[in-house]
Amino acid sequence: MAAAAPPPPPSAVPEPSMGPPETAPIGHPLFTRIRLATPLDVPYIHKLIHQMAVFERLTHLFSATESSLSSTLFNSAPFQSFTIFILELSSSPIPPLPSPSPAFTPIEKTFNFDLPINDPEKDAFSVHYGQDQVVIGGFVLFFPNYSTFLAKPGFYVEDLFVRECYRRKGFGKMLLSAVAKQAVKMGYGRVEWVVLDWNVNAVKFYEQMGAKVLPEWRICRLTGDALQSYETANI
Amino acid sequence: MAAAAPPPPPSAVPEPSMGPPETAPIGHPLFTRIRLATPLDVPYIHKLIHQMAVFERLTHLFSATESSLSSTLFNSAPFQSFTIFILELSSSPIPPLPSPSPAFTPIEKTFNFDLPINDPEKDAFSVHYGQDQVVIGGFVLFFPNYSTFLAKPGFYVEDLFVRECYRRKGFGKMLLSAVAKQAVKMGYGRVEWVVLDWNVNAVKFYEQMGAKVLPEWRICRLTGDALQSYETANI
Repeated sequence: MAAAAPPPPPSAVPEPSMGPPETAPIGHPLFTRIRLATPLDVPYIHKLIHQMAVFERLTHLFSATESSLSSTLFNSAPFQSFTIFILELSSSPIPPLPSPSPAFTPIEKTFNFDLPINDPEKDAFSVHYGQDQVVIGGFVLFFPNYSTFLAKPGFYVEDLFVRECYRRKGFGKMLLSAVAKQAVKMGYGRVEWVVLDWNVNAVKFYEQMGAKVLPEWRICRLTGDALQSYETANI
Repeated sequence: MAAAAPPPPPSAVPEPSMGPPETAPIGHPLFTRIRLATPLDVPYIHKLIHQMAVFERLTHLFSATESSLSSTLFNSAPFQSFTIFILELSSSPIPPLPSPSPAFTPIEKTFNFDLPINDPEKDAFSVHYGQDQVVIGGFVLFFPNYSTFLAKPGFYVEDLFVRECYRRKGFGKMLLSAVAKQAVKMGYGRVEWVVLDWNVNAVKFYEQMGAKVLPEWRICRLTGDALQSYETANI
């Protein structure tokens, strides 16, 4: 019946709805879950990091391999050192994890979109749980830092990345919020990360999340040959 | 004999020395050692951090106590998490550590100064090794960070502090170099820290040590009530 009614004029205020008719479209649900990464995720993490390097036009600095990631990640308990949250997405309810970590209860949220999301890389980022399949949409990598003034640890977020087709839908906020929530849960004092000063949209997004941008501090980096020279330096 | 000779004119090139005469002043030697901090150092560390807060005019942000430091530091093996190097100084040779850590061989260096250094806080920063006494002159606190592009850990230097009477003598460089050397030893890819953009002397010092200042990145910080709000946030 609603579909047959004439459309209202553009400026008209719609009549109060009596509830959607049975034939109304119900949208496109997207079930999401944030969980701890495991060593099995390394191939996906490697691809996500490479996509991030492409996005940042920094592929000349990209030298990570699956092997180098495997040997440097997952060497300590979750949250004690380098930690990765993975964002999983599915159009169907996501089944429980087969081996949940006692350190972190996954965060689940269901979105409803007007249009389906076309993921051209769905196959490359698919994870199977028995007969169920989810896709990995992004990740956040973080680790403890420390404030001597507070005498408290915090978390430093090194990377936050959502694949292109899933951007601007709230998933980045969901990942960063999960880190903030974990920090509060652990009694930590801060969550910090960096942003490029010309990336005004990112700055605005972070400020809306409650962060302050510190204008005066600059990062100093000692790397490459300059760092290597300290191997034999007479201190 | 040399002392009795007339002084050369200001622009004269001195004659090649035949070696110092036996009566020449030998200066004031200062023996230094960089070692890993232990829980026994917490009272000194607490005082050093407070001095740093005073120096930075940030005492309103200082809330560390000896107890809060004790409970958040020294909870993991050296270099795996928050790690502190302590700078010890003495006018006499420093005795070996009673319980050296297998994780780090202390770095020793002897300086020779024209004038003795007057340390008005010597008693407050004295450490006894049997009958020998050294003073603590400064510290550096650092912890692992991670580069996904390199797929390697690095070190982030949170604090570098030398007490006022010992500044501008090379001790800050010695502490930071010790961190860089340890990073190379562990196969790490970077050492990073931050500097205030208006502190041109510090920027120059760090650049002379081989560091690059990254002009475009800004730190984002989520802390206080803004962070606490994520405790109950519906992510």
